[in-house]
Amino acid sequence: MKPLALSKVYQLLEPGPVVLLTTARKGRANVMTMSWHMMVEFEPPLVAGVCSSANYSFDALHTTGECVIAVPARRLAAKVVKVGNASGREIDKFAAFGLTPLPAERVKPPLIKECFANLECKVIDRRLENRYNLFILEVLKAWIDPAQKNPKTIHHHGYGKFVVDGAAITLKSKMR
Amino acid sequence: MKPLALSKVYQLLEPGPVVLLTTARKGRANVMTMSWHMMVEFEPPLVAGVCSSANYSFDALHTTGECVIAVPARRLAAKVVKVGNASGREIDKFAAFGLTPLPAERVKPPLIKECFANLECKVIDRRLENRYNLFILEVLKAWIDPAQKNPKTIHHHGYGKFVVDGAAITLKSKMR
Repeated sequence: MKPLALSKVYQLLEPGPVVLLTTARKGRANVMTMSWHMMVEFEPPLVAGVCSSANYSFDALHTTGECVIAVPARRLAAKVVKVGNASGREIDKFAAFGLTPLPAERVKPPLIKECFANLECKVIDRRLENRYNLFILEVLKAWIDPAQKNPKTIHHHGYGKFVVDGAAITLKSKMR
Repeated sequence: MKPLALSKVYQLLEPGPVVLLTTARKGRANVMTMSWHMMVEFEPPLVAGVCSSANYSFDALHTTGECVIAVPARRLAAKVVKVGNASGREIDKFAAFGLTPLPAERVKPPLIKECFANLECKVIDRRLENRYNLFILEVLKAWIDPAQKNPKTIHHHGYGKFVVDGAAITLKSKMR
């Protein structure tokens, strides 16, 4: 993993990929699947994410205020679904699904080696946590895996149906 | 346009397409491009969206508390970029870019005829509006255009670079 400029983080999340979210509590790491996230600010990068209070990860995120958002490419799709269908209450999902935790620099939750990008985050605003399970996160440190060239992300349409990134097009635009 | 069950709205927005957002104020409609949105609840569908206070649309959304989220397919990409690079302060973007406003049922802002889905929304939570320009919207009514089969959406990676939906895959999952 190589550091990525914080100013480029939005280019990873703005297109809406399914992501994995890691947490750590009492020395034990966990991972969940998340599709409900969006950019909120360019730099420092702020991200909003919804983590249902029914998820085991919710308590860890609520208590520690820390997580890592890891972005998987197409080849991890089957694991992403398995992560989403299992609970850290019952199993160690890293071991069960062959995901490799790597130490993060600024937070306790681990990076995921197999993901092409990893974003170390802390919770900075909890005003919508109670009503909507919505957290505002600041990205403190970002990592990219230069060995994964042009990774194609996956986008969830519900019930295990995903669309994989297709053709890239570039249109003249002054929009950041 | 045909009504769409509110329970299916998340399948449109969860994959992270670029959308158009219409507003109406003092009898005049406007439209902007938005990529910073996410689902917050399945049903009734709640959506979070960020509309910069630098945008002309912000005042209309703030004042009226109403908008329509319209989802464009690939063939509208060039218009989507033009909408994003122009301001309703200066021009009528519907006329300038050949987008057809249609009356909505529950709100004053118009649907967009050329988009394959349209979601009539009202603002229901403004607690994060001041700090992050973040609105929580409830979808009151949803429309789908049955004439557009399997529309491919576009996902923004910054500076006019988009990725178009590619192959669809289905994996066994109990995740909604």
